[in-house]
Amino acid sequence: MTNYQNILEASRRVRPFIQDTPILQSRFLNEKLEQSIFFKCECLQTTGSFKLRGATNLVLNNTKRNPSIKHIVASSSGNHAQAVSYIANHLGLTATIYASNNISPVKAAATRSYGAELKLFESRTEADEAVKIAAEDEGVLWVPPFNHPDIIAGQGTVALDAITTLNNDVDAVFMPCGGGGLASGSLISARQLAPNAKVIAAEPLAANDAARSLRSGKIESLTSAPQTLADGAATPAVGEKTFPFLKQLDDFVEVSENQIAYWTQWLQHLLKLHIEPTCAMTMQAVLKWAKSAPKNSKALVIISGGNISQATQLSIWEKDYLVRIPSLDLEI
Amino acid sequence: MTNYQNILEASRRVRPFIQDTPILQSRFLNEKLEQSIFFKCECLQTTGSFKLRGATNLVLNNTKRNPSIKHIVASSSGNHAQAVSYIANHLGLTATIYASNNISPVKAAATRSYGAELKLFESRTEADEAVKIAAEDEGVLWVPPFNHPDIIAGQGTVALDAITTLNNDVDAVFMPCGGGGLASGSLISARQLAPNAKVIAAEPLAANDAARSLRSGKIESLTSAPQTLADGAATPAVGEKTFPFLKQLDDFVEVSENQIAYWTQWLQHLLKLHIEPTCAMTMQAVLKWAKSAPKNSKALVIISGGNISQATQLSIWEKDYLVRIPSLDLEI
Repeated sequence: MTNYQNILEASRRVRPFIQDTPILQSRFLNEKLEQSIFFKCECLQTTGSFKLRGATNLVLNNTKRNPSIKHIVASSSGNHAQAVSYIANHLGLTATIYASNNISPVKAAATRSYGAELKLFESRTEADEAVKIAAEDEGVLWVPPFNHPDIIAGQGTVALDAITTLNNDVDAVFMPCGGGGLASGSLISARQLAPNAKVIAAEPLAANDAARSLRSGKIESLTSAPQTLADGAATPAVGEKTFPFLKQLDDFVEVSENQIAYWTQWLQHLLKLHIEPTCAMTMQAVLKWAKSAPKNSKALVIISGGNISQATQLSIWEKDYLVRIPSLDLEI
Repeated sequence: MTNYQNILEASRRVRPFIQDTPILQSRFLNEKLEQSIFFKCECLQTTGSFKLRGATNLVLNNTKRNPSIKHIVASSSGNHAQAVSYIANHLGLTATIYASNNISPVKAAATRSYGAELKLFESRTEADEAVKIAAEDEGVLWVPPFNHPDIIAGQGTVALDAITTLNNDVDAVFMPCGGGGLASGSLISARQLAPNAKVIAAEPLAANDAARSLRSGKIESLTSAPQTLADGAATPAVGEKTFPFLKQLDDFVEVSENQIAYWTQWLQHLLKLHIEPTCAMTMQAVLKWAKSAPKNSKALVIISGGNISQATQLSIWEKDYLVRIPSLDLEI
């Protein structure tokens, strides 16, 4: 099991390769929700998401132990692809990313611009199978997206950095849940640094495999590709390495597509950042918490990324949600 | 005439009231345009734009000279309204903003949230007339949006701060032009700090009163309300206080609506910031400059604001411009 010591080690390891991202507040939102909300802005991280932390930790830890590694492989159509491509190139290693051919043109361009070769497949399943075969070759390292202790430890450095910056004075910590790497790492850091803080994750109602897994007590999978704005949380199933941590979360909130669009508009507008729907979604969990928490409690919200396709931006901004001011009574 | 000394005084005056906004770069864009581009991010300024600088300078300078001032008035449906409302409230003064009733709901809400009363009129002309009458009352200070030496000096602090941060090592400075306050102030700072730097402004082709004025040699006005995504540069005419500075610009570029949408998508995507089309527009001027400037020259681009209505965001993201990678050969 990944532990706090692993996160401290990851932090030392990845420090030279990552940005120290800012923590922002919105006075307007604090007033409306009667709480003090701190946004950790990993959309401003190199490659546009926190994913660089886990990938960097795994690659550094493995290449140190095994200097014969020359080539990195990963299966991803999202932020993980860009992170792996970037860190491989930065360390002078070659990389191949296996992705389904519905990868958005802009994410494909970004992945290639960082230096990786991109191999496209009919489906995510085919890409996943191809990467496993490629990983068997000599000198090749496979970087899975979440189900690995090094990935969990790397992602845990976001909460470590943010909670430390806030002098451990945090009453609740919020993050999105896809495969559960960020949620697991955040839970470990929060339990160590702010043991009384609630740790709460959110996922799209349209891709609620994790919520269903927590209800049934075993890992449930999506049976088809979900239709959700929160593409970073559309993972078909959580992993056996992350599920034990997800069971320890204090709450787990399922968020509708209208709610995702609402909060993405408002966070982009208030924070002036290009924020992914995947992380804006967590504001619905913040709203639920804010109704019952003591006034002026301190919430840390992890803004996990800022890579958004044109099609997704268009869907987000289709209706005008800015006419409806956030409030504790908000119903969307 | 506003001079560099006025900008230094403005800088000392406004310092306690403004944010020290960051300067960002995009490695991707630098590679594609073969130049080194520095973005001064005033979208992260308090109230979401540089307008706070000019308004704060004018209000502080006047209330110091005339302590009987108790009430502030301004006519604006945009970023200037929010800036004036904020600084009045911050200084314990009341404020009334006169605006046309087509002000976007989100800008109206923001203006009110900072504390000002909002009076709505059928047209911009009627709001402008009402503010002049209100300004005649005892103890009332009128804050015009651009045509005033204190406003020009305040807006000049953006370039002052940015060029100083860049150790005066800048080959070109770019900004949008509406009424010309930012362009005038930037020109004064740049000529002092980096006298060899080109100073270049951009405006929408659909609201090209300034370009036409520069061609005819006298101030020309728009005859009707322009249809442009760059609403911050839709001002009907430049002022007699700004026009003499605009004449000294090294180039003035008129930008089409497709070009405005293209660069807004790309800047939001690359910088991960919620950037207004009004300032993204200046990238078309950067592209023109980049074709003939020596490789790896240094350009400062002033990102003037980040207040965008839902309708504008929807228009910006309607087509997919992210499929077309920026390059020196780009034709839009």
